[in-house]
Amino acid sequence: MKEFYFEDLTPGLRLPALEHRLTEADIFAFATAYDPQSFHIDPEAAKDSAFGGIIASGVHTYAIAYKLLADTGIFQAALIGGLGADEVRWPAPARPGDLLHLDAEVTEAIPSRSKPDRGVIKTRTALVNQDGTTVVSLIALDMMKKRAV
Amino acid sequence: MKEFYFEDLTPGLRLPALEHRLTEADIFAFATAYDPQSFHIDPEAAKDSAFGGIIASGVHTYAIAYKLLADTGIFQAALIGGLGADEVRWPAPARPGDLLHLDAEVTEAIPSRSKPDRGVIKTRTALVNQDGTTVVSLIALDMMKKRAV
Repeated sequence: MKEFYFEDLTPGLRLPALEHRLTEADIFAFATAYDPQSFHIDPEAAKDSAFGGIIASGVHTYAIAYKLLADTGIFQAALIGGLGADEVRWPAPARPGDLLHLDAEVTEAIPSRSKPDRGVIKTRTALVNQDGTTVVSLIALDMMKKRAV
Repeated sequence: MKEFYFEDLTPGLRLPALEHRLTEADIFAFATAYDPQSFHIDPEAAKDSAFGGIIASGVHTYAIAYKLLADTGIFQAALIGGLGADEVRWPAPARPGDLLHLDAEVTEAIPSRSKPDRGVIKTRTALVNQDGTTVVSLIALDMMKKRAV
């Protein structure tokens, strides 16, 4: 697998559209632990909710997006650490059975001013379902090593 | 339990400092599913990393923060849906055994312009460990119903 360092993650770089099938069991497991609201874990209550059925916790969709981003391999060789994310949004619900794919592109690469061996990468990251609808979007911020010179 | 509607979530409202003990088992389970990097799941590799030991996935700390926010009860009666979060940051690592507590305050309440029955609440939300160090901070955005008039 290609090794990605700060210098390799240039703005405009598009990442592979990796896929993830969302299962009801995973929605229940995540929501039971971290977001036990009825429209995530109770099929009957969810049917009567504004969503008309079970939907995934928003934080769960963020977690899946981050997993697929890591699965592209861009963090494998040179990640120093995740810094966080900006503008996390859930424009539409994600439902059991959805086939989600990653839509991600490096948008900024900012060399550190204080530490010449590293820099911050911003990656516009989204999950899109089988109908072309985005269910989560965010800008991931990650500190990456530069190549040793 | 008090029922919270949009009108009850006024800027300056501080929420209870609910606690959560972070276990190594939970760190492994979350990271195995969503963030399988060695410093989250491999104690030997983690010892040799810059972190000096196992740390929780950042997305995991966000999930715990959201859970404690929900546990305060503010979403129980009148949540329409989570919209997302701004400025998610992980200023310091969270480690196995950490006792994290919620530090959260409503900072904005914005009535919807198009739908008079609802509005967006912004809640500055953080988890702070036993040493007073913040391990995750974010601004949660949630759409809430107004009281029926």
